[in-house]
Amino acid sequence: MASTVFEEISPADFFYRNREIAGFSNPVRALYSALRELVENSLDAAEVIGVLPELYIRFTYVSGPIDGSAIYKIRVEDNGSGVRGDMIPSAFGKVLSGSKFRLKQSRGTFGLGGTMTILYGQITTNTPARVISSIGSDYIHEYELMIDIQRNNPNVLRYKTHVDPEHWHGTIIELSAEGDYTRAAPKILEYLKQTAMVNPYADITFVDPRGRLYVFDKAVKKMPRMPRETKPHPHSVDVETVQRLITVTRCNDLFSFLTTHFLRVGKGIARRLLEEAQLNGETSPKSLTPNTVAHLVNVMKGFTGFLPPDASCLSPLGVELLEAGIKKELNPEFISVVERPPSSYSGHPFIVEVGVAYGGGIPKTGEIILYRFANKIPLLYDETSDVSWKVTHGLVDWRHYKVNLLEDALAVVVHVCSTKIPYKTVGKEFLADRPEVEREILNGVRQAARNLMVYLSRKERVDRDRKRLDVYAKYLPKVARFSTRLSGEEKEPDVGVLLRKVAKSESPESTEA
Amino acid sequence: MASTVFEEISPADFFYRNREIAGFSNPVRALYSALRELVENSLDAAEVIGVLPELYIRFTYVSGPIDGSAIYKIRVEDNGSGVRGDMIPSAFGKVLSGSKFRLKQSRGTFGLGGTMTILYGQITTNTPARVISSIGSDYIHEYELMIDIQRNNPNVLRYKTHVDPEHWHGTIIELSAEGDYTRAAPKILEYLKQTAMVNPYADITFVDPRGRLYVFDKAVKKMPRMPRETKPHPHSVDVETVQRLITVTRCNDLFSFLTTHFLRVGKGIARRLLEEAQLNGETSPKSLTPNTVAHLVNVMKGFTGFLPPDASCLSPLGVELLEAGIKKELNPEFISVVERPPSSYSGHPFIVEVGVAYGGGIPKTGEIILYRFANKIPLLYDETSDVSWKVTHGLVDWRHYKVNLLEDALAVVVHVCSTKIPYKTVGKEFLADRPEVEREILNGVRQAARNLMVYLSRKERVDRDRKRLDVYAKYLPKVARFSTRLSGEEKEPDVGVLLRKVAKSESPESTEA
Repeated sequence: MASTVFEEISPADFFYRNREIAGFSNPVRALYSALRELVENSLDAAEVIGVLPELYIRFTYVSGPIDGSAIYKIRVEDNGSGVRGDMIPSAFGKVLSGSKFRLKQSRGTFGLGGTMTILYGQITTNTPARVISSIGSDYIHEYELMIDIQRNNPNVLRYKTHVDPEHWHGTIIELSAEGDYTRAAPKILEYLKQTAMVNPYADITFVDPRGRLYVFDKAVKKMPRMPRETKPHPHSVDVETVQRLITVTRCNDLFSFLTTHFLRVGKGIARRLLEEAQLNGETSPKSLTPNTVAHLVNVMKGFTGFLPPDASCLSPLGVELLEAGIKKELNPEFISVVERPPSSYSGHPFIVEVGVAYGGGIPKTGEIILYRFANKIPLLYDETSDVSWKVTHGLVDWRHYKVNLLEDALAVVVHVCSTKIPYKTVGKEFLADRPEVEREILNGVRQAARNLMVYLSRKERVDRDRKRLDVYAKYLPKVARFSTRLSGEEKEPDVGVLLRKVAKSESPESTEA
Repeated sequence: MASTVFEEISPADFFYRNREIAGFSNPVRALYSALRELVENSLDAAEVIGVLPELYIRFTYVSGPIDGSAIYKIRVEDNGSGVRGDMIPSAFGKVLSGSKFRLKQSRGTFGLGGTMTILYGQITTNTPARVISSIGSDYIHEYELMIDIQRNNPNVLRYKTHVDPEHWHGTIIELSAEGDYTRAAPKILEYLKQTAMVNPYADITFVDPRGRLYVFDKAVKKMPRMPRETKPHPHSVDVETVQRLITVTRCNDLFSFLTTHFLRVGKGIARRLLEEAQLNGETSPKSLTPNTVAHLVNVMKGFTGFLPPDASCLSPLGVELLEAGIKKELNPEFISVVERPPSSYSGHPFIVEVGVAYGGGIPKTGEIILYRFANKIPLLYDETSDVSWKVTHGLVDWRHYKVNLLEDALAVVVHVCSTKIPYKTVGKEFLADRPEVEREILNGVRQAARNLMVYLSRKERVDRDRKRLDVYAKYLPKVARFSTRLSGEEKEPDVGVLLRKVAKSESPESTEA
């Protein structure tokens, strides 16, 4: 009987074979994904050091059919933190090597994007990527590298350092890749436009292959509060997390282990938790058997005394910035932006921000334009699978809020930020419908929609009043003239006083009383 | 300036942190995914040795709230190929170690499923998995193992061998995992039902946690043609693939390298290809520079002389088996099954099979029931994102085929088999809308729908005829009686002859002429 052959592949090889799950499925999509991964890394790199991001992106045509799959050079420059010289090869030439495996909000989540882009460029053009970076020291480091896919290792072809008395910091990545720019352009421009909408404190410049310049200047100079690294909430941990903490902890007793390594576990809570688990607080954590660890985790998960995770590790945009961003890009007649209070799912904190915009510069009528954002990045693909689509197209009855979907121009903006965005794909296309997240989005949309309803009601009333005033203005003089004549008087009364009175009155009911 | 810390994580750690992208997002979904991954591995293991699959699946309640997240023991037994004793630890205890990285149709594609299930069980219950397997030799191997997630290595806790004079072959996996069976049950049962539909040659027995027995017996004893391993088609390769082939090849010249390692490259084609690439066929492949390899790949991709990949590496069900499967599960009034000719996208061969079923035992009316299958596994999640949904709900105008969607019960079955299913997620939920795949599905649905239209037209005509016959049967005797009386005759003519004549006639037009 033939036996089956088992073999092991490297993570780079896995993502090389399955690149479509990381968003590199075809020349159109790949170009979009390449741009996006590099832009998101750059934005993160600037924010992590509290600098207003300045990005310069250039696509240059190299060879091949312009109306199909051609080779383009992609260059992205940022003013971010930069990467330490000795870390550059593995940071960019090794899949699953990254700086974002900490518990903190960031755009990148999988530690894949930058390296996948370089890998994609390499397999389509067989040319190395160039990485130039400095953390603001005396030297700028310049590498030319390729990825040894089967071994998941960087392969450095050239390395240079440049003395830099200016102490520039940032990263420049340059690579060639196959792509179909002509067909990718609409998504790429939409992506940049929406990125500008939720990052109104960033300058983004894009030069397309035909040399056209797109400039998205910052609308504000204020950055949102920076996210901080946080500890795991007891509701979010599993046996593996606790085992790892036990391995690295310096705590000698369970009581201090609990209060040191977990969020929302103060001394009182720790005592109650130990009591419920029937464990002795003086036990050394390293002496716990696997079964006891599993038991402790179960007790933690079922324990109802913890406060929900706090949101200091999150960086929402805030009402002011989101409103500025939406106004700048859509210029609507009315806008209501709502920031929901922090919430959590399975111990992961999240905040939902919702904007509902109406009329004015919103381009389409007859359908809801949905803008979806997660940790300040726009999501453009697979809209109908997203939880926000479910909310805006299924759960909210817009007629209730006086919106006529057939005639009115309506845009809904949903921004979810979290230490753990519930993406359903590595390509970061859409959010799963976790009940807690769905509920917060629903509440946010309803809250903003109520403000819209108030506005529309007032508008309706003003319209009605104006119409009534028109009627009064037309007939009151006639009535006055007629009454004057009928009563034999000479001088007509001044109807202007009456009209002004009606016009002034805000509530139509009171004028009728 | 603070510098960013880079760290590397193992592939096991990556999927541990991002288990939701592999389908283990919550206790409901995880239980479904666990069952599914094990079942699919078992079906593959039986088919690879040409044996009719026999699966025995048992879920046993262990502890926790029955109406929420509880611990269940999951056991799956098969009669498949088994795994060699020394290979069991890495096959089940190492992420990205697998037997399915070859170019061949199989249910598993990512080399992840089995190990992910064990990993999920481990992190939710902290208990080891038990794997018992034999390839039909004198010994059965039994392992108890856990996964060292940070190192991506199996950790064997116990190992035993049993002498087996019966030479049993197969694999038994047993593990404990957290899950919400009560809420997962509908999807799990639907999954098993649909699996039985496309694997009508398999016996599947399932015992649920309450001891209820579900038996899906085989409807046929014939297995579909087995898939064969194939070589890459020149249109599907990239620089990396060719570089790897150059590393392992024993060919000393480019000409034999091309004819040996690629599909559809005969001597004539190889000569034309070398000419177009302006390369000498006597050059040693190992002497090619990276740039020349990139050039060769570009020429290959643009070359139009290749035949499309042949489909001998694919294993479609065939019209007979698919029809048997659908009849067994749906028992419709009418069914039309179509197998499309082999096609390809980017050098990957694929075959689409479509069944359109109407009326009878189909449970719902008023909407199209869509059954989606890929390489003989049912896809149950994210239906509206699937290319088949787009075809059946957007591109086909059912009124054209005389189907009244509001009243008729209609089921559409789409089965795509390929060496490379264009999944968009690691959780294997739905297929991307690759234009070539979309076109084949559309053609298949239209072809089957035309057969349905013919049936419905005939049914309509028969209905019309029967109605006319009813009218004749009612009035003809009266007309006869009246005419007899009117003409003064005594004996009425035999209207039965006339009625039988009308009834026999197939074409309503001819009877009216």
